[in-house]
Amino acid sequence: MVLNGDIRAAARLMRDIDDNRPQAVDELKQLYPRTGNAYIIGITGPPGAGKSTLVDQVTAVFRKRGKKVGVVAIDPTSPFTGGAILGDRIRMNRHATDEGVFIRSLATRGALGGLSRSTADVALVMDALGMDIVIIETVGVGQDEVDIVKAAHTTCVVMVPGLGDDIQAIKAGILEIGDIFVVNKADRDGADRTARELATMLEFRSAPAGSWNPQVLKTEAQRGAGIEELVGEILLHRDHLVSTGTINHFLRERNERHFMDILRDSLYRKALDHMATDATLERVVTGMGNRTIDPYSAAAQVLAGMLGDR
Amino acid sequence: MVLNGDIRAAARLMRDIDDNRPQAVDELKQLYPRTGNAYIIGITGPPGAGKSTLVDQVTAVFRKRGKKVGVVAIDPTSPFTGGAILGDRIRMNRHATDEGVFIRSLATRGALGGLSRSTADVALVMDALGMDIVIIETVGVGQDEVDIVKAAHTTCVVMVPGLGDDIQAIKAGILEIGDIFVVNKADRDGADRTARELATMLEFRSAPAGSWNPQVLKTEAQRGAGIEELVGEILLHRDHLVSTGTINHFLRERNERHFMDILRDSLYRKALDHMATDATLERVVTGMGNRTIDPYSAAAQVLAGMLGDR
Repeated sequence: MVLNGDIRAAARLMRDIDDNRPQAVDELKQLYPRTGNAYIIGITGPPGAGKSTLVDQVTAVFRKRGKKVGVVAIDPTSPFTGGAILGDRIRMNRHATDEGVFIRSLATRGALGGLSRSTADVALVMDALGMDIVIIETVGVGQDEVDIVKAAHTTCVVMVPGLGDDIQAIKAGILEIGDIFVVNKADRDGADRTARELATMLEFRSAPAGSWNPQVLKTEAQRGAGIEELVGEILLHRDHLVSTGTINHFLRERNERHFMDILRDSLYRKALDHMATDATLERVVTGMGNRTIDPYSAAAQVLAGMLGDR
Repeated sequence: MVLNGDIRAAARLMRDIDDNRPQAVDELKQLYPRTGNAYIIGITGPPGAGKSTLVDQVTAVFRKRGKKVGVVAIDPTSPFTGGAILGDRIRMNRHATDEGVFIRSLATRGALGGLSRSTADVALVMDALGMDIVIIETVGVGQDEVDIVKAAHTTCVVMVPGLGDDIQAIKAGILEIGDIFVVNKADRDGADRTARELATMLEFRSAPAGSWNPQVLKTEAQRGAGIEELVGEILLHRDHLVSTGTINHFLRERNERHFMDILRDSLYRKALDHMATDATLERVVTGMGNRTIDPYSAAAQVLAGMLGDR
């Protein structure tokens, strides 16, 4: 199946990806050659930074310029129900009737450890559907979320004034993944200080000559201030990637990660199938409970069984 | 090797676990039968909630009661350098010379997706070393971090007043993993409202009759207020787990997760070894670049090669 701009088919395929259905893989195989055209933008930052509103505004600017925009929003999940909490519905109502905008929320359920995989897969579907821009929005705190934005050509890290000390540490952690830094809610007290601190930290990072020099921008997403400038900076970064050839190295790394995610996921499913044949899991867990089996030796045995080493 | 209370040997083993060294596995196999005695407490919450200070105070209360305390702190990591940002040194200086306290920071590098595995492994070492209490501290936002605290017998979710709207969503997400809820920095404006909101949300969660009823406590960790009450509530929860027999179900689930983490990790390493023999990865990534190979078919081929299906 090739999408040919069929939005319903795309929505169904994304649902199949999210639900980890095997048939999604066959469709993805066929889509794959048609992908590679979308420009992917990552928007990440701590909870409370106003990322959703910012994504909404950036989407509006790209729409005004005639670009089709896909949005993949990674929502905090209820670990028990497995559902996304914010959901597509309360997001970006004003684009709801715009056929040039396609929004999809993914839940951070990650039972198969496959969130970065399914995000990449959903971005591919949007790409194949003809979206010019795909925005990936994550809460940038956990390693999982950091891995997800690595799929983006340009990563924007969003901060706000006055989020406390732990944030400083996280700032240091995400300094190295950001291509552009945004201090949102810039009308708040302390915005200038936060921007200055970020700029100072960026000065101290060692970067090879000729490499991209990340700027700190201020926005007030709520009233749309600073958004044109942000989009301008994103396009500057894109030009830099292309003109320096850095984009080739980036694409190789991204493809490697995507492939390894898929491989890891497949191996895990295979292991579950293998163990299901003789109730291995039940035996191991019981043995661990009374400390007659250790999980390290048990895993080695399952592995040997799967690979046929005897 | 069995530890026999040898702190240096334990520290070295934890380093080996953190560095993913193979020899760590042999030692863990031997330690395993000596574990299962420590009570594990998870402390999680958003950045800026004051978790480190709270952990420090809870540690002090358990020490006063003569308990040995291990702390595993999951720190936000610099994704490039791979190092933990906060580090052991700036944590809990006042316990630095206390032999009854063992603190270890783990970095959220997760390159092998093994953070919940290495956290569980480090907790086991502390257990074998004779720690009565092991506290696991994480930034509770990503799924990764939620998975980590599932290893805890009792999970405390820490909130603070006034962290904004996104937090509400996260609150809903972690409502279901918390056994105890703590509103820290309770001297701040809005503390009572935050506590009331949490209590209201908890009322709406459907729980079977006879199940644990999570309370909302207020603390000011900075000046030590409310900490005795928190420790009291943790011990009440422990009694509940034991008296209702819920603990057996919990331990089975925990053991299953730990075993599956180990198995997944081993499979991944095996796949890397397998592909290293004929530069598979290089070939696949190049093919993805020019869209002549799709990663889904490539992963299926590698899997077939490893398992000897032809």
